[in-house]
Amino acid sequence: MADPSTSPPLTRASVQEALKLIGPYIHKTPVLTNTALSKLASTPRTPAELEGTPWAGRTPAKPVIRLWFKCENFQRIGAFKIRGAFHAIERLKREPAWADNGGREKGLVTHSSGNHAQALALAARENNIPAYIVMPTISAAPKIAATKGYGAHVIFSGSTSVEREAAAAKVIQDTGARLVPPYDHPDIILGQGTLGLELQDQVSLTLASSSPYASLAPASQPHAALNAIITPCGGGGMLSGVALSCEATGIRVFGAEPSHEGADDCTRGYYAGKRIENVKSLTIADGLRTPVGLYPWSVIYERRLVSGMYSVSETQIVAALRLVYERCKLVVEPSAVVGLAVALYNEDFRAMVEKEAGEDGWDLGVVFSGGNVDLEALSKLFSS
Amino acid sequence: MADPSTSPPLTRASVQEALKLIGPYIHKTPVLTNTALSKLASTPRTPAELEGTPWAGRTPAKPVIRLWFKCENFQRIGAFKIRGAFHAIERLKREPAWADNGGREKGLVTHSSGNHAQALALAARENNIPAYIVMPTISAAPKIAATKGYGAHVIFSGSTSVEREAAAAKVIQDTGARLVPPYDHPDIILGQGTLGLELQDQVSLTLASSSPYASLAPASQPHAALNAIITPCGGGGMLSGVALSCEATGIRVFGAEPSHEGADDCTRGYYAGKRIENVKSLTIADGLRTPVGLYPWSVIYERRLVSGMYSVSETQIVAALRLVYERCKLVVEPSAVVGLAVALYNEDFRAMVEKEAGEDGWDLGVVFSGGNVDLEALSKLFSS
Repeated sequence: MADPSTSPPLTRASVQEALKLIGPYIHKTPVLTNTALSKLASTPRTPAELEGTPWAGRTPAKPVIRLWFKCENFQRIGAFKIRGAFHAIERLKREPAWADNGGREKGLVTHSSGNHAQALALAARENNIPAYIVMPTISAAPKIAATKGYGAHVIFSGSTSVEREAAAAKVIQDTGARLVPPYDHPDIILGQGTLGLELQDQVSLTLASSSPYASLAPASQPHAALNAIITPCGGGGMLSGVALSCEATGIRVFGAEPSHEGADDCTRGYYAGKRIENVKSLTIADGLRTPVGLYPWSVIYERRLVSGMYSVSETQIVAALRLVYERCKLVVEPSAVVGLAVALYNEDFRAMVEKEAGEDGWDLGVVFSGGNVDLEALSKLFSS
Repeated sequence: MADPSTSPPLTRASVQEALKLIGPYIHKTPVLTNTALSKLASTPRTPAELEGTPWAGRTPAKPVIRLWFKCENFQRIGAFKIRGAFHAIERLKREPAWADNGGREKGLVTHSSGNHAQALALAARENNIPAYIVMPTISAAPKIAATKGYGAHVIFSGSTSVEREAAAAKVIQDTGARLVPPYDHPDIILGQGTLGLELQDQVSLTLASSSPYASLAPASQPHAALNAIITPCGGGGMLSGVALSCEATGIRVFGAEPSHEGADDCTRGYYAGKRIENVKSLTIADGLRTPVGLYPWSVIYERRLVSGMYSVSETQIVAALRLVYERCKLVVEPSAVVGLAVALYNEDFRAMVEKEAGEDGWDLGVVFSGGNVDLEALSKLFSS
C-alpha cells in the first residue's frame, strides 16, 4: 500500500477525509440500543458475583451507563475491516506512481485468515485489482471459500507469522503486488476510524430528537453527545482510528481486550509504559490474538488519545455474547463483544465510570466490530 | 377479552385504527435488505438441488425476487405478538362495562408456552392489570422465568390442550379474569396486522428515495411499492391481519407453513376448501404447530384475501435459518424463516412469481416474526 510517509497526518480531519473517500463503498451501519442491557450495565453487581474475580471483596461499583451499539456486524463482509481496505486502495489510486508503474495490474497482497482477507478481496475486486491472500493451510474451509468467493487468489502457507510473511514476500517478488497490512498502517487506521465519526453523528442526532432512553436520562440536563466510546483492541487499527475520530471532541475512548493467555498485551503495555511485541493466545476472541501495532500504539499510548485499557475473561466474553444473542437478537463474533463485557463485568471500568460520571451517568458507544461466526464453533460455546 | 361482536370490522381501516391505539407501546421495527439473499432468491436452483423434492425433474423456475425483511425479532418481547396483546387490552379499556365491573382488577388470562404468554404478561403489566398465564409443566425453564420476569402469575397444567383449557377455565372461575386467546379473535388479528402497514410504508419510502437494489431493479420503471408479502402461518392471526392491511392495495399476500407431520394444515385446507381443525406436529418451527383459527380462516380462505399458501420441509427451514444467521447477522427463531424458505426453495411459489412478475420481478416483503430462540436448542440444529 501507499508509503506511510505519504499518508495524511493522524488527525480527526484526516479521518473525515477518509470518510469522504470510502463513503460510497461502505454501509453506514445502524446504531441500536437495548433498554434491558443498559439497565443491567447500570445495576451494581452482587458481592457473590465478584467472588472468584480480581475484585472479590470490593464494594461493587454503581455506574449509570446508557449503551449505544455501533453494529459493524451489518457492515459489508460482516465487519469493520472493509473500511480500512477501501481506504488503503483509494489512497493508492491517488499515488500517481502506483498506476503509472502498473501497480493496478500487479495487484495487492496480504496475509490473514480473518476478516481483513475478505475485506481486501472484496475491495480489490470492486476496483478490478488482483488480490493475493496468504492463508494458513489449517484455515477453516468456510473462510477459504469466502475469500475465494470474493475473487481472490488464495496462497497457502504454514501457520506461523514467519511462514506467512515469507509466503507474502514470495508473492511480492513474483508479481510486484503491494502489501496491504491488516492494521499497522496510517491509511488503515484512518479508514477504520470512520466508524467513530458515524457513531458520534448518529447518537447526537438521536439524542437531539427523541431518545429511547428518555426514562433513564438524568433530569438535570439533556445530553447532546456521547460521553465515551469503547472498542475491541487486537492490532489496534480500529481503536486508534476511533481515538483519532474523537480527538478534541471531549469524547473519551477506551480499549477492551481478552485477558486469556496474555492477549491483553495492549492493556499490560499501556500501564507498564512499553509496547508488548509478541502474543501467543488462543482466546475465543480470535480477531484479537495479535499484538498492538506500532502506528496504533503511537496514537493509543504515546499521544494518550486512549484514556484507558481494560480486559475481560473468556467466561465474561461468553456471557456478554449470550446476552447479545438473547437480548439484542444480533449475530456477532466473540471479538465483537469484549467492549460490552468490560462495561458489564470489569469493576475497574465500572468504578471509573461511577467516579467520572456520577449520577448523570454516561452515554457509552460500544462497537460491535463484526459478525462473522462459524456456527459450528458458536454452537459449542452455547451448548457447554 | 372484548366480545368479538363488539370488535371493529375486519378491514384495512380497522388495522389503521389499531396502529393508532398501539403505536405508543410498540417498536416500529426496521426493514432490512440483503443483496446476497436477493441474488440467491433470483438464481434458478439446479436440477440436482431439486432431486429428492416434490419438484424433481421439473425445469427450475427463474423468478426475480428482491427481498425486504420486516424484523419483528427486534420487536418488544422479541416477537410480533406484543402487537395483538396491546391491541386486545386497548380494546378492553374502551369497553365501559369491563372497567365498571372491576375487570381491570380481575385481570387477564391465557394459556400459552410461547411468545403470546410473554406478550400478554408485558402488556398487562404496563397497564397495571394482573396476568395469569397457564403453561404446561414441561415448559422450558427460561420461558417460565421470562414470563414470571414480566410479572405474570404462572399456573401450571398438563400439556394437552384440554388440560390447558381446563386450567384456564379454573382461573376464570376463581378470579373473574378475561381470556385473551393467542390468535382466534378479531382484536388480535387487527393488532398483528399493524406490522403490514408499517412494512408497506417503510418499503415505499425507501423505494421513493434511493433503493439498495438500484442495480437489481428493472430498467423499465421504478417500483413505488411492494408487490407482495409472505408471512408465517400458525394460528393465522398475523397472516390474516397482514392480509387485511393489504386489502385493496394491489399487494398480494401469501402464507408459509412447515410441512412436517401435517403442520401445513392451512395449506392443505386452503386447497381442499375446508379448514383442518387438528394438528399434532413437532416441527422445529414451534410457533407454527397450531391449526389455523376460525376468524383467521374467514379472512385467509373465505374472503380470499390470501392469494396462496405454501409449505417447506424441516431441512429447508434449517437452511434458511443458517442463511439468516450467516448473511443477515440476525437472531431469528425457526418459525420466523418459513417465508424466506418458501421464497428460496418452494418451486411452486417460485414458478408462480416467474409467471406473474416476469423479468421485472417482485419486491417481496418477508416477515421475520420473532427471535426468541433457546440457544441450546439452536446449537443442536447448527452442529448437526
